[in-house]
Amino acid sequence: MSHTAELIAVGTELLLGDIANTNAQMLSQGLSQLGINVYYHTVVGDNPRRLRQAVEIAKGRADILITTGGLGPTYDDLTKLVLAECFGKELIHHAPSEERIRARFAAMGHEMTENNLQQAMLPEGCTVLDNDWGTAPGAAFFAQGTHVILLPGPPMECENMFRHRALPYLQALSEGVIASRTVKTFGIGESAAEALLRPLMNRLENPTLAPYAKPTGTELRITARAETEAEALERIAPVEEEVKAILGDKVIGVDVNSIQEVCLSLLQERGLTLGTAESCTGGMMASLMTDLPGASKVFRGGVVSYHEGVKAQVLGVPEEMLAQYGAVSPQVAEAMARGAKKLLGCDLAVSATGVAGPDPDERGNPVGLVFLGLAWEDQCIVQEFRAGNVARERVRRMSAQRGLDLVRRHLTGLL
Amino acid sequence: MSHTAELIAVGTELLLGDIANTNAQMLSQGLSQLGINVYYHTVVGDNPRRLRQAVEIAKGRADILITTGGLGPTYDDLTKLVLAECFGKELIHHAPSEERIRARFAAMGHEMTENNLQQAMLPEGCTVLDNDWGTAPGAAFFAQGTHVILLPGPPMECENMFRHRALPYLQALSEGVIASRTVKTFGIGESAAEALLRPLMNRLENPTLAPYAKPTGTELRITARAETEAEALERIAPVEEEVKAILGDKVIGVDVNSIQEVCLSLLQERGLTLGTAESCTGGMMASLMTDLPGASKVFRGGVVSYHEGVKAQVLGVPEEMLAQYGAVSPQVAEAMARGAKKLLGCDLAVSATGVAGPDPDERGNPVGLVFLGLAWEDQCIVQEFRAGNVARERVRRMSAQRGLDLVRRHLTGLL
Repeated sequence: MSHTAELIAVGTELLLGDIANTNAQMLSQGLSQLGINVYYHTVVGDNPRRLRQAVEIAKGRADILITTGGLGPTYDDLTKLVLAECFGKELIHHAPSEERIRARFAAMGHEMTENNLQQAMLPEGCTVLDNDWGTAPGAAFFAQGTHVILLPGPPMECENMFRHRALPYLQALSEGVIASRTVKTFGIGESAAEALLRPLMNRLENPTLAPYAKPTGTELRITARAETEAEALERIAPVEEEVKAILGDKVIGVDVNSIQEVCLSLLQERGLTLGTAESCTGGMMASLMTDLPGASKVFRGGVVSYHEGVKAQVLGVPEEMLAQYGAVSPQVAEAMARGAKKLLGCDLAVSATGVAGPDPDERGNPVGLVFLGLAWEDQCIVQEFRAGNVARERVRRMSAQRGLDLVRRHLTGLL
Repeated sequence: MSHTAELIAVGTELLLGDIANTNAQMLSQGLSQLGINVYYHTVVGDNPRRLRQAVEIAKGRADILITTGGLGPTYDDLTKLVLAECFGKELIHHAPSEERIRARFAAMGHEMTENNLQQAMLPEGCTVLDNDWGTAPGAAFFAQGTHVILLPGPPMECENMFRHRALPYLQALSEGVIASRTVKTFGIGESAAEALLRPLMNRLENPTLAPYAKPTGTELRITARAETEAEALERIAPVEEEVKAILGDKVIGVDVNSIQEVCLSLLQERGLTLGTAESCTGGMMASLMTDLPGASKVFRGGVVSYHEGVKAQVLGVPEEMLAQYGAVSPQVAEAMARGAKKLLGCDLAVSATGVAGPDPDERGNPVGLVFLGLAWEDQCIVQEFRAGNVARERVRRMSAQRGLDLVRRHLTGLL
């Protein structure tokens, strides 16, 4: 039987925009992993009448209702009171929860004010969800055909309570196990990937295949349901191979986070070091590489040669070359990469020079035109990349990632 | 008359938890600034039936309805179709929007597929909200007692469309004029700022003063309502002065976006150039500076000296110094800054060397310990900064911004 969940977040701070509803994102991810559909999120303030209305609407369209927030003493237990009322339940005192709350305050060395004990009042007959990450316990109960789960609002508490308390409760509702693997691509948009994969997507039922546009490239998530995890992964494997075959060299890895992570692994495996020479990307390639712990093993360093003088004096780009071809040229991209390799003493050096915008350069090169160079041993290749006339930040980010993709392609023999 | 707004976000990616509904947060902040109440947020997938239901519910409880998402060509213009239907309107072709969409594709050098022209179909009689940040135009109309505003989903587009297109429309609904000024600080948390400003905040009615925690520092927004904008700004001025006096050198500017923007302006005003020497920040300071158009006038370049060999051979940090004090030391921070200034030929050079984590360095320096250096003329100062044992990315980001704040303080005579 397939389940439908609805999320109701309670908190005026959400309606004032003080915080974003990140709990809804976390819960939605977790529920979709379980194969539970989520059709609505609702946010409502600390107002009993409006919360009641939201609950009544949700009851009519979902069989799992998860609330976040409104369990603490400062909100007068709004959520528990309203939910108990909507489902015809009384709140009753739960002695073990009172003990836990008292013990928690004692452990922190804080004095406990009496209003904290309201948190030990819970819907009759509920499964109490012990909170090891805060004071307010959660609760789960089944009434009027609906599974109701109450979770605390602070994101860290909410996430732990969901993973360690609510998840076992929800897993018992669903049949079998869900597993997924994510094929990460670079340099192909969601719509282009979807066009290539549409016949496969249409053919599949279990596993399913879905594309997701991410700032760092399109992801293809393959999700299977089976009796056991091993069986689910077995169902995924042939589809994963098929996706890889269709998308070819656009695939940078499976269950990886980023192009820089892939570069780091490849450099580590091969025992090679990398350096950077950056103009338009202004340090972004270096910054991406050093985002990762362990970068110091393979990343030597970089030069940001923003001014022509730095290109000439630090990287040794000949001044005649700069005068003749301009800074945005394949010649200069090559000289930058070769210069950085020598200066930094690295095995590979990648360079980027281009027009980040918002205006064309003084030679009339258009915004988004970028030359990327890669030097190794005594060799060098240069690729032209056109990011298009998009925002400066986007030209820079895309170019920096393209530069690292050049490293990946070189190291995997794709060039 | 007081208005009540409801936000409906359209997008299955929100229900799958691929992204958080940050648009709702941004819009809620903006609406609360206008004195417009927000009682509900709803998220619904790309499903016409469920969107229709959400709209019908919202119509009954709000007089301003703002939707985000579902305007692009890949979603079959779901939001516009459903909203037009719910409010008894036809979608009609809007020629100027078609021209804008065609021009945008031409500028990017991409071929435009025909489905993009669906974006030029808009509700009859609406105010078209031109989108300078993406392809899909927005729309605003009044029907059946409700003001309806349709905004695109990508957060950057949504925010710009709200600020520059929807806000004037909404301001016309409220009596008088709202004006606000934002005092930007650096190096002070929201709660510390609030503690200092609480007496002032309690005393104020019009203007109001509210703190906002941003990744780049706490912001204090002063908002006044008056008959005219000039009058509102007149009310703001004395409060702005008072806030500045209370927060002192933590204030980096008013209505500025970032520390790098402040540095760029200061460098431009004084006709000075900047360079960077980065170890733990790995290129982030350079990348922040080159985020901004116009950076080439004042930013010479930088060296990312991740490996000790690069510190010694490129920046000229003495090898004995590295051996004696280690790379994470005030001595090396100074030598890096002085070395960069000389190498890059800039007026000022800022350096950062520290432990980004996740582990302490081989000398036992703790995660989050960073030394920042600033060299100018023949002088140099070094400051110790302790970011604390936080995530690597946070140590790096905070350190890079601290480094730039050192530049600001030097240029404004605060050191």
